[in-house]
Amino acid sequence: MQIDPPYLMFLGDVPDKLAAKTAYGIVDWRREWCLGQVRLPGCQADLSLPDVTVKDAHAKGARTMIVGIVNAGGVLNPGWVPTIVEALETGMDVASGLHIRLDSNPEIAAAAKAHGRKLHDVRMSDQHFATGKGTKRQGRRLLTVGTDCSVGKKYTVLALEKVMRARGLDADFRATGQTGVFISGRGVAIDAVVADFISGAVEWISPAAESPDHWDLVEGQGSLFHPSFSGVTLGLLHGAQPDAFVICHEPTRKTMRGVQHPLPSIQEVIDLTIRCGQLTNPAIRPVGIAVNTQALGEEEARAYLAGLEKEYGLPATDPIRFGVEGIVDRVVADFPATPA
Amino acid sequence: MQIDPPYLMFLGDVPDKLAAKTAYGIVDWRREWCLGQVRLPGCQADLSLPDVTVKDAHAKGARTMIVGIVNAGGVLNPGWVPTIVEALETGMDVASGLHIRLDSNPEIAAAAKAHGRKLHDVRMSDQHFATGKGTKRQGRRLLTVGTDCSVGKKYTVLALEKVMRARGLDADFRATGQTGVFISGRGVAIDAVVADFISGAVEWISPAAESPDHWDLVEGQGSLFHPSFSGVTLGLLHGAQPDAFVICHEPTRKTMRGVQHPLPSIQEVIDLTIRCGQLTNPAIRPVGIAVNTQALGEEEARAYLAGLEKEYGLPATDPIRFGVEGIVDRVVADFPATPA
Repeated sequence: MQIDPPYLMFLGDVPDKLAAKTAYGIVDWRREWCLGQVRLPGCQADLSLPDVTVKDAHAKGARTMIVGIVNAGGVLNPGWVPTIVEALETGMDVASGLHIRLDSNPEIAAAAKAHGRKLHDVRMSDQHFATGKGTKRQGRRLLTVGTDCSVGKKYTVLALEKVMRARGLDADFRATGQTGVFISGRGVAIDAVVADFISGAVEWISPAAESPDHWDLVEGQGSLFHPSFSGVTLGLLHGAQPDAFVICHEPTRKTMRGVQHPLPSIQEVIDLTIRCGQLTNPAIRPVGIAVNTQALGEEEARAYLAGLEKEYGLPATDPIRFGVEGIVDRVVADFPATPA
Repeated sequence: MQIDPPYLMFLGDVPDKLAAKTAYGIVDWRREWCLGQVRLPGCQADLSLPDVTVKDAHAKGARTMIVGIVNAGGVLNPGWVPTIVEALETGMDVASGLHIRLDSNPEIAAAAKAHGRKLHDVRMSDQHFATGKGTKRQGRRLLTVGTDCSVGKKYTVLALEKVMRARGLDADFRATGQTGVFISGRGVAIDAVVADFISGAVEWISPAAESPDHWDLVEGQGSLFHPSFSGVTLGLLHGAQPDAFVICHEPTRKTMRGVQHPLPSIQEVIDLTIRCGQLTNPAIRPVGIAVNTQALGEEEARAYLAGLEKEYGLPATDPIRFGVEGIVDRVVADFPATPA
């Protein structure tokens, strides 16, 4: 899936910020791609982008309108259709993370066809992938893994991309979830792929690099210890064949998201990630720990992270609070540039 | 997916036995459900069932016509359509393991609609599953795991079902692949499920049993060590929450199916299956080794199996050559009946 920026952000009439979570994620990381926002009467979210019309945005160069809305019920709000149709008529593609296909609406399907525009449904995967092969591909890869779902795996790789690029390293974020796909403009929502093709899809997401020193920073999903999503996580690990991984963790969580199971320890995640990851990369190793310390005071957070550094011999940080420089230092130290 | 027997087996004009592999598997295990076969001119396969007409089969009580054909190209042979339409008109459902949907053919779709019949596409999954929960369900479960794909996982659970039932044990085969679904009349081709729902689909396939002593014998898929399909295998392991597992192996294979990776050892499979399986069943344990010894002479096979028994302390057998009585003995010994 290839989504062309710049983007026009469509928020519809969402009742709160949470319903526009995807849109906020895009603006956080790709502010420069977002030309403006279109909001309908009653909209309770604000991306702090200029409020524009569809025509204005198109005139300014917007190529894709992003429907950055989470709709719980799985229905396409009829009130959104005229704006989506207008974007297609004006000459933009439309991309959505809704649970329902854009082309399930006849007006939208007809407008896309009539104007030769693309409809991207990021949550659906129609793409045909080969099965994974597990053979070594050129380039270096880093994957985020976790003690649970929703512990900062996407944020961590995006923060690493920013710092690594600032240091002149050749690094690309590789998206495996819907918000990530909008942020990178490319990728696959890996949890929507047919089970037989999980690792094959990841091999497509992170293909052989042109340089042996190029880093793909692959967004992790789920956890090897999550009884709902472990299959996605293992297929992702085998497909990504990471040289390095960062363990993401939330220290106050008692049970894994949506189930009754306790969180595994960081050590258990390290051990099983290495055990399984060696299948497609015998040299796999941990390079850092990324902790969401939001629930801790600053001193408490610093003490907790210092304790982890000592216990695991790895840089430990909260990417939001303290940045990821220490992890990048470790990556640079562990993976020196290939001699010319 | 619920497919109603008795079956009429449709072989079309397949050029060889291999192209009717699914049909042979069904007849091997559910001969009593198969009332007859329909073959078109040129057909080179023969299930040793009576050759019948669609009308005959319906008169004898056939409720579903099975399209037991593997078609490499993913096309529906136009020559097969009249027979499929005739079955629907006569009042049978039609079930297929083809890579293409039956209702993608307008004549078939129209006939199914006009006559109110069901079309089952076993390779596709339209069913909506919940995500897996990983909570303990009543009953006992045995799963086959493997050093590779295609090492006898389905055969082994079917052989176990036969022997366990003959001994008066309450045991049901639970299908997770297309041939298995035809054999059990129920199940899901788990590799066709969307990645997020692998373990959830298995929880549906093997629900809470009515008795604590009931055995679900769950068909395994892939291998935790197969870089193409490991995600399916892990989701299946977590969803099945097995009390017991049997390791399936083919001793002459050098690399895993379709890839360049060597096979893991039986010990590696045991260790990783226990490590991962403990997440949803802390008491998981191995109860046997099932080997496909087809490539070995009889004495060589016996010596090899005796060596495995000694090395692993588990009953080791070739289910086809020597049966699975020894594994059932171990299951009975390890899992005594619940006191009344």
